[in-house]
Amino acid sequence: MIDVGIVGGTGYTGMELLRLVSRHPQLRLAEITSRGESGTRVDELFPALEGEVDLAFTEPDVGRLSRCDAVFFATPNGIAMGMAPALLEAGCRVIDLGADFRLRDPALWQEWYGMEHACPGLLEEAAYGLPEAHREAVLSARLVANPGCYPTAVGLGLLPLVTSDRLKSGPVIADCKTGVSGAGRAAKVATLFCEADESLKAYGASGHRHLPEIEQTLRTLRGEPVETVFVPHLVPMIRGMQATLHVAARGSAEEIRALYQERYAAEPFVEVVPAGAHPETRWVRGTNGCRIGVHQPPGVADQVVVLAVIDNLTKGAAGQAVQNLNVMFGLEEGAGLREVATLP
Amino acid sequence: MIDVGIVGGTGYTGMELLRLVSRHPQLRLAEITSRGESGTRVDELFPALEGEVDLAFTEPDVGRLSRCDAVFFATPNGIAMGMAPALLEAGCRVIDLGADFRLRDPALWQEWYGMEHACPGLLEEAAYGLPEAHREAVLSARLVANPGCYPTAVGLGLLPLVTSDRLKSGPVIADCKTGVSGAGRAAKVATLFCEADESLKAYGASGHRHLPEIEQTLRTLRGEPVETVFVPHLVPMIRGMQATLHVAARGSAEEIRALYQERYAAEPFVEVVPAGAHPETRWVRGTNGCRIGVHQPPGVADQVVVLAVIDNLTKGAAGQAVQNLNVMFGLEEGAGLREVATLP
Amino acid sequence: MIDVGIVGGTGYTGMELLRLVSRHPQLRLAEITSRGESGTRVDELFPALEGEVDLAFTEPDVGRLSRCDAVFFATPNGIAMGMAPALLEAGCRVIDLGADFRLRDPALWQEWYGMEHACPGLLEEAAYGLPEAHREAVLSARLVANPGCYPTAVGLGLLPLVTSDRLKSGPVIADCKTGVSGAGRAAKVATLFCEADESLKAYGASGHRHLPEIEQTLRTLRGEPVETVFVPHLVPMIRGMQATLHVAARGSAEEIRALYQERYAAEPFVEVVPAGAHPETRWVRGTNGCRIGVHQPPGVADQVVVLAVIDNLTKGAAGQAVQNLNVMFGLEEGAGLREVATLP
Amino acid sequence: MIDVGIVGGTGYTGMELLRLVSRHPQLRLAEITSRGESGTRVDELFPALEGEVDLAFTEPDVGRLSRCDAVFFATPNGIAMGMAPALLEAGCRVIDLGADFRLRDPALWQEWYGMEHACPGLLEEAAYGLPEAHREAVLSARLVANPGCYPTAVGLGLLPLVTSDRLKSGPVIADCKTGVSGAGRAAKVATLFCEADESLKAYGASGHRHLPEIEQTLRTLRGEPVETVFVPHLVPMIRGMQATLHVAARGSAEEIRALYQERYAAEPFVEVVPAGAHPETRWVRGTNGCRIGVHQPPGVADQVVVLAVIDNLTKGAAGQAVQNLNVMFGLEEGAGLREVATLP
Repeated sequence: MIDVGIVGGTGYTGMELLRLVSRHPQLRLAEITSRGESGTRVDELFPALEGEVDLAFTEPDVGRLSRCDAVFFATPNGIAMGMAPALLEAGCRVIDLGADFRLRDPALWQEWYGMEHACPGLLEEAAYGLPEAHREAVLSARLVANPGCYPTAVGLGLLPLVTSDRLKSGPVIADCKTGVSGAGRAAKVATLFCEADESLKAYGASGHRHLPEIEQTLRTLRGEPVETVFVPHLVPMIRGMQATLHVAARGSAEEIRALYQERYAAEPFVEVVPAGAHPETRWVRGTNGCRIGVHQPPGVADQVVVLAVIDNLTKGAAGQAVQNLNVMFGLEEGAGLREVATLP
Repeated sequence: MIDVGIVGGTGYTGMELLRLVSRHPQLRLAEITSRGESGTRVDELFPALEGEVDLAFTEPDVGRLSRCDAVFFATPNGIAMGMAPALLEAGCRVIDLGADFRLRDPALWQEWYGMEHACPGLLEEAAYGLPEAHREAVLSARLVANPGCYPTAVGLGLLPLVTSDRLKSGPVIADCKTGVSGAGRAAKVATLFCEADESLKAYGASGHRHLPEIEQTLRTLRGEPVETVFVPHLVPMIRGMQATLHVAARGSAEEIRALYQERYAAEPFVEVVPAGAHPETRWVRGTNGCRIGVHQPPGVADQVVVLAVIDNLTKGAAGQAVQNLNVMFGLEEGAGLREVATLP
Repeated sequence: MIDVGIVGGTGYTGMELLRLVSRHPQLRLAEITSRGESGTRVDELFPALEGEVDLAFTEPDVGRLSRCDAVFFATPNGIAMGMAPALLEAGCRVIDLGADFRLRDPALWQEWYGMEHACPGLLEEAAYGLPEAHREAVLSARLVANPGCYPTAVGLGLLPLVTSDRLKSGPVIADCKTGVSGAGRAAKVATLFCEADESLKAYGASGHRHLPEIEQTLRTLRGEPVETVFVPHLVPMIRGMQATLHVAARGSAEEIRALYQERYAAEPFVEVVPAGAHPETRWVRGTNGCRIGVHQPPGVADQVVVLAVIDNLTKGAAGQAVQNLNVMFGLEEGAGLREVATLP
Repeated sequence: MIDVGIVGGTGYTGMELLRLVSRHPQLRLAEITSRGESGTRVDELFPALEGEVDLAFTEPDVGRLSRCDAVFFATPNGIAMGMAPALLEAGCRVIDLGADFRLRDPALWQEWYGMEHACPGLLEEAAYGLPEAHREAVLSARLVANPGCYPTAVGLGLLPLVTSDRLKSGPVIADCKTGVSGAGRAAKVATLFCEADESLKAYGASGHRHLPEIEQTLRTLRGEPVETVFVPHLVPMIRGMQATLHVAARGSAEEIRALYQERYAAEPFVEVVPAGAHPETRWVRGTNGCRIGVHQPPGVADQVVVLAVIDNLTKGAAGQAVQNLNVMFGLEEGAGLREVATLP
């Protein structure tokens, strides 16, 4: 068994980690921390986990955590970079579900996150944990930066195109939609039921922290910058994310769909839906899957619409983190991630 | 008082017409028809209207309807074109909330709607009832084609740009989102609560009937074709629609926002939100309003994001129909349309 | 015009007051206060009110407020009792939407609200503003205690029975359900979208502040105590409240329905639905109405089920407050309260 | 491996069976039928099951089905009774998720279901599959009548009380709430998103088919009739059911909670929540669990409130069916039913 720790277990990505780790046949949850809930039993705070998790939250402590084989950080930005160096030193592997190690450039990180980076020297080492793009790097990593939810959906939705010669110049439009859980479990008026239900809005249209991460992902894949317009929207549902990608590309929908099918043929979690189909976010609810549809808008030449859906908390956060751990520890990549979506 | 009739009063646009007409100070509902519910009292089918509407549904009958001053068609496509000629002959004014008179070209209509047009001779005469664009035509019209919900949101969201020299070449991307009421009140599995709730999907990405209408609207405004990519999405909320418009345009967000503010300064129902603000669909819930935000995506030159929200059943259907009637009959344009959104 | 002030205009009952007052033909909003948002324009905080309210929030100040003819308190419990005496002194009429003046007995108030009452001498004078039960008292009142949402639904649902000899002994069961807006606009984890959506729970089953208010209401109406079991439930919808009342009573459903119809025949806002019908909360969404259904459970003698629905923010709070003001100032009782429910 | 067949695999209970069977380590789905979708691949109709189920729907055929070890009927009422005799004859075990074998009395069945029973001789033999009450009978049964969702929630919520001497005379009030999936996947206006969302209503208050089943369950457990008032409500959520049970009973909440804890101590799926806690339906979302809370209403002697939550599609239908199969075949009772609720 692999002993894992979770730092910051009371938010939504922490809860999702708890669910996935508790069912994973090769993982044992050894430690779960929370500054605010230290001493509280996990199943007291989350009664749905009664019988599944027999632990209490503890104060985050590097000494105790360093006894784990791997530590997940499901914390606000800025926490992981403070603790990761000591854990790595102690031989732990670290997977950060926050943003601390996602951007290679510490200046860019500081610009978007408003803090000086605490360990810029680790940025180069950290593997960017989108296994479909960087599996080899994850395999040998001590430290994995788990991608943001939007960068995951956009990255998977564009990967085959940006690594091909079918992509034409011109900005890629990433019109994205997320369920409310993406905003986290902190008490805020804007995500109250009565504010978020029965309404839709864009946000961050003039700039959002996931934009530099998306740009870095696409630039890395293509080898040159890819101009990107990124507009996220908040949708009245708990989970689910769709990236609707409007891209100038050479070829018919059939050709481009074939490109995607070929690229993802061996991927356990990514699937291209048949011609004419539109993936629905509920198809991957609670699962680590990504479904991708490719459409050609009528009457507009050399333009394609790619639809990519994921569950923002699973493939967009905790599921991908477990997938990365599976890769890092040489486990079967789908271990503990065989959920079937609960429908309806 | 102006006597109005509603043909097809049992769908969602019919219900919304009932609500608006029942509160309009200068309208009297004289006739409401339904093939399926003929003989049923309106407040028996819709108990929320108890005390508001003292009528029963009747079989649609041109003789009875022609006693009205104006007749709204809230019917499936293909009904209005069968009855409108006789009503116009009898001196009625007709406002069709369906698609029968929206496309000028009968061949295009037949291509998208799968029926031969019953009175192609009226297509030229019909005014396209987007008052912000075609008020003069509506003013003198006997027959008004009430725009579709998506064409209304996209049309209002692009009107100032497509009529200016700031628009650059390249396709306009209209990434649109609608509440479920846009799919109507017919019993279908796809719009059951358990299918539509807690999920999001695109639909019609390879072709949707509102596309030729949007293209016609933009071509009419600009005087030349405007290439358009149109992808609608279904969102788990009852009402509300947003068009997120990605457009290549010259100028800063400030300049383009100023262009919008100037164009809409005198419009009673359209409002441009301040810099940095993102309109929410709930702000116009149940009202005839349209709110528009203009954003500039960081790092991409000559590209703008326009966010336009409406209530798909009000400004996107019944409210705009009443607005058109107000214009046609010389009433104050906002008469009967002074709803304040019910929040939360 | 009657000048009104609203103290505490940023919560959900305050927002509903804003909507109703802005449309009321005889009211002018003269002052609206908020400690937290003092200086902010109302339409900046609530963009849906753009064009409807041309005021900024101010610090609550008795001097300024006392220039109003009437002042609504839409504040947390304990605020109104601090300011009401001075306002009454200055000649203002006061309607408290909070709980400060609802319980006659200051000891009971202190027991349930955990504060000593600041002006117990006013408790006797305050009229309990359920006009259907106490219209005369409201008519001549300087100070009205606007009932809680649950006590309104339960009170209207039981009024005809508890004032008749058909009620049998034994506890009345009030199994109640509310939308989430009843919990207010304060940022709390429990009412986040992701906590409250797609779930149902009872709360306060071992004791809830509205219980003593319900007991007082029923005792006042009957002239003797009525044992009451009160269990509220939280339902994933924004607005709406139902009281399902299980009562031992003599007579058939028809007889009891007739009793209700007779009692409420002259009431403008209460309506008894036909035999066999089940009222739905959406029928009164955004309106001041109350709909009541009476059913007889098969196979159980002398037992009746009464279903009473209201909108918790309208008839359950702000609408009833405006109704009380109408009564107090001799206006037509339905003035400003003629909303038709927005359906779907 | 045990080969199972599902008759009627396209409704919501059929979908839930598909999910559970596909994950059950000892079950192999051998046959799945649908009259309407015969020939369609399961994962074409339900894309979320892509990669999980490699079968197409077939026409229901006794010959093919009889090769299964066990057959689930997830069909409308009246289908199972037509096919069960032949399947039993062929040596299959049968679990009917419909109502055909739930009522012992064929006259009562005909009264409530409007059909003559096709094989009344099997009614006596059929085990009523509430394992917590009738495990022994299920163990040896060829034919199991899987309980209705409401009878499951009410039965589990009352079992310890009705089998004890703490229950007092007087009607038991079962005020129940269900998510919309209980109404099935048939296309009906009443369960459209726009009709069911943002509203709550009671239904069947004057008589519902689950009432005689509840009465039979309680009578069987107690040995004498238990007068029952049953009022179901429709709640805007997909899954989830709560029975709020108002019962006259001797003893404090502590004593009655202890009674429940003792009775359910060895039950794998039923759990009593701590004093003061209110179970939430989401705690058991997608799981076979039942959570029960016991409260004492203040000021009313000898009265208790029991709150029982289940997932109507899992413990209320397909999960319980799998649990029954596990019992019938001597498998570990929790096999294939170890889901952790997906929260949020």
